[in-house]
Amino acid sequence: MASKSFYAIVSGVGPGTGRAAAVRFAQAYPVVLLARKPESYSSIVAEIKEAGGQAFGLTADATDEAAVNSAFESIKKVLPGSKLAAAVYNVNGGFARKPFLELKREELDASLDAAPKGFFTFAQKTLPLLLESVPESPHPPSLIITGATASIKGSALFGSFAAGKFALRALGQSLAREFGPKGVHVSHAIIDGVIETPRSKDLATNNGAEDGKISPDAIAETYWHLHTQHRSAFTQEIDIRPYVEKY
Amino acid sequence: MASKSFYAIVSGVGPGTGRAAAVRFAQAYPVVLLARKPESYSSIVAEIKEAGGQAFGLTADATDEAAVNSAFESIKKVLPGSKLAAAVYNVNGGFARKPFLELKREELDASLDAAPKGFFTFAQKTLPLLLESVPESPHPPSLIITGATASIKGSALFGSFAAGKFALRALGQSLAREFGPKGVHVSHAIIDGVIETPRSKDLATNNGAEDGKISPDAIAETYWHLHTQHRSAFTQEIDIRPYVEKY
Amino acid sequence: MASKSFYAIVSGVGPGTGRAAAVRFAQAYPVVLLARKPESYSSIVAEIKEAGGQAFGLTADATDEAAVNSAFESIKKVLPGSKLAAAVYNVNGGFARKPFLELKREELDASLDAAPKGFFTFAQKTLPLLLESVPESPHPPSLIITGATASIKGSALFGSFAAGKFALRALGQSLAREFGPKGVHVSHAIIDGVIETPRSKDLATNNGAEDGKISPDAIAETYWHLHTQHRSAFTQEIDIRPYVEKY
Amino acid sequence: MASKSFYAIVSGVGPGTGRAAAVRFAQAYPVVLLARKPESYSSIVAEIKEAGGQAFGLTADATDEAAVNSAFESIKKVLPGSKLAAAVYNVNGGFARKPFLELKREELDASLDAAPKGFFTFAQKTLPLLLESVPESPHPPSLIITGATASIKGSALFGSFAAGKFALRALGQSLAREFGPKGVHVSHAIIDGVIETPRSKDLATNNGAEDGKISPDAIAETYWHLHTQHRSAFTQEIDIRPYVEKY
Repeated sequence: MASKSFYAIVSGVGPGTGRAAAVRFAQAYPVVLLARKPESYSSIVAEIKEAGGQAFGLTADATDEAAVNSAFESIKKVLPGSKLAAAVYNVNGGFARKPFLELKREELDASLDAAPKGFFTFAQKTLPLLLESVPESPHPPSLIITGATASIKGSALFGSFAAGKFALRALGQSLAREFGPKGVHVSHAIIDGVIETPRSKDLATNNGAEDGKISPDAIAETYWHLHTQHRSAFTQEIDIRPYVEKY
Repeated sequence: MASKSFYAIVSGVGPGTGRAAAVRFAQAYPVVLLARKPESYSSIVAEIKEAGGQAFGLTADATDEAAVNSAFESIKKVLPGSKLAAAVYNVNGGFARKPFLELKREELDASLDAAPKGFFTFAQKTLPLLLESVPESPHPPSLIITGATASIKGSALFGSFAAGKFALRALGQSLAREFGPKGVHVSHAIIDGVIETPRSKDLATNNGAEDGKISPDAIAETYWHLHTQHRSAFTQEIDIRPYVEKY
Repeated sequence: MASKSFYAIVSGVGPGTGRAAAVRFAQAYPVVLLARKPESYSSIVAEIKEAGGQAFGLTADATDEAAVNSAFESIKKVLPGSKLAAAVYNVNGGFARKPFLELKREELDASLDAAPKGFFTFAQKTLPLLLESVPESPHPPSLIITGATASIKGSALFGSFAAGKFALRALGQSLAREFGPKGVHVSHAIIDGVIETPRSKDLATNNGAEDGKISPDAIAETYWHLHTQHRSAFTQEIDIRPYVEKY
Repeated sequence: MASKSFYAIVSGVGPGTGRAAAVRFAQAYPVVLLARKPESYSSIVAEIKEAGGQAFGLTADATDEAAVNSAFESIKKVLPGSKLAAAVYNVNGGFARKPFLELKREELDASLDAAPKGFFTFAQKTLPLLLESVPESPHPPSLIITGATASIKGSALFGSFAAGKFALRALGQSLAREFGPKGVHVSHAIIDGVIETPRSKDLATNNGAEDGKISPDAIAETYWHLHTQHRSAFTQEIDIRPYVEKY
């Protein structure tokens, strides 16, 4: 069966969007989970296997080129002959909310490392694989990028974070225009709200409204929809926010 | 069964997006098809019934307030007790590509009639019904608007068409912000390309590339996805274009 | 002297931006002031004359095509042989802040009449005149449009107003692209804040901050700058807001 | 005289916008010119002096934090007691037009170094000085940033350049929102076209149309206008392009 020989990869796995995307795509493909630490993926790998799916956790800091290269070498061993159908870049980092004159250059660097630089490495590894999959992939091979409010708005005190996210969006747009005509679907999601995670549990987002935080599973469902779009009808950019969000 | 008592409505039914949306939503709901002339919907109504769905065609010019009111009265008779789960505004009109100094005021009027004015009437009829459906609808009640490239870009020679489409987008944004917090999902799709229809068949869009025109069924699939999004993860705006489109 | 034979026109003259633009452009050109009522322009005409300038008030409702036509006929008489160097469209109208389901269709109409429709008429009258001025005008002949926050954001409760302003912006973009290459500068200003006028005097905008309302003279200074831009360096869109404005 | 004790600084001086901005601001202030090499500023310093202005060239690579720090130390010596009225960040770098899979990570780094990182250092040095000038500066102290088409559009083959320019824009927006309310005017100009320079002389831009390349002096005139805007009417973003440019 065709889809048996395709896999998905999620970089930046944690308890929120990363986990949900891995679980959702695992309904169709074996999934590779990349994270900086095994703690971030091990329980999710177990969860997927429990549900009858295939999952492989690999440890790599997305900002460390050599580590990422080595992770991609490992994939060839754990999934020999399998082709890449979907890649999700969900790495966060470099979030610093503070007055500009108190920002350290390292904080800007951290944001740029996690966003454009880490994505650059990820895209250079995955795009050749996605291109190879164009002829036979069950759905157009996809590269999906997690953005944020800060991808389109440079708010006060969020300068370094927005710098990274704007840059990530720029790369996504450019790749969509270059690789779309070759059959690869590059899509950017603006996640405009607080995501429901164990860590955000006690935040009284949107005045504590029910469903006032974004369900990671709902994000993953939209990512899956993006992946399954027909190539005559690709979405490049989509916003996702709670019904009660002010914007 | 809950979904039995909900219906969908598509205004602006023709051979492209309107037909596809009606057919797609008819997999889940009885569908009301509004068009200016019975020729526009009768074969689609038959197609839906043939496939085992329920469909009702009603004749009304979307720019004629009285005709639209009367159509909504008719719905109460053909679907007594049923509630509105989804409404799609897909009316086109007022397209005129010509030098500004050759444009007639009536051409601007036609664009404004079809876009903001027709939508205004449609939204005033459907939003109260969608609000009523919030507590029990199988998915968040949805109002989906078909936009175009001209919704976000005023190109040379497209002034009157863009005026209507920009205005339609403005209303959609405003309604999303007002009715989102009440549980209604208002979403705007930027259809950025030529749609595959009998009429566009001979256009050599995108140099005649395969799948270089947008499949209406693919648009409808995305509209259905928008309708099924969880309320914590609503999309307000989405672009849809062929993989080969320049933008 | 070349500039003696050129004039400017401001449509939508009142105590705010309209007055300031007329006064500013009167430093260089005779100015025609259009308003619905003589009360709106008579004291400004007097003020300009007092300062040694030339000014002519004409009464015309910008949404009334015949009245506008007739005003342009009058200009030929009061300024025979003079050519149009700059035209400012500053008409406001159709502002209604209210829940969508309480909006009347006439309120949407009023917004569309004042914005895209009134501008359409104004542009069809002024663009042929501006084109004629291209070879000799002291600065590139200019058509300047006053927009608002609602030109780019459809906020809750501002749907009808935003519909008009979005549509106006669409027309401006389209005309800029069509007439720019012919030497006419079409520019759109997003006035993002409350303007300092007698009417807004008691509003505690921006927490009553000093200079928290936009000085109309400052807007006019920027309009003048737009008019004087070299044709190799036209600005199509500019935002203008108080230093303390949240956005 | 008040303005005697204020100066301006231009970082990224070359034969185009940098030179023109320095020359324009030198009509009002002593100007400090920063460039990587003395060749880039020495003739401009001479030109300004010849015209009766004051100019000081300093050598510093904008991406080298220590060099920039040292340049700012030098300013204290050459202009003791003088305060900063205007700072222009005009550094270019990292332009690489090539297929993504041929891009080297160093090319992305170069773009990020020149744009967000270099600007970060420049802004951290100049903003405290601009804040100090708020009470007495003849015009609101200004930080003006040179952007490009790539600041708002990630075109195919321009990914790394756009990443830098998007990030720069993000920082500018964030600083405008943080420092505007404190009286500093942060403004971002989207230069959308080819600039007329000795190097671009032989490019047949816009089919060789007269004035089809942007006059750097015209850009500088707009920068000066931005600097002189009243604080109730700040512009955050402006586009600048030739009348014949396609966009």
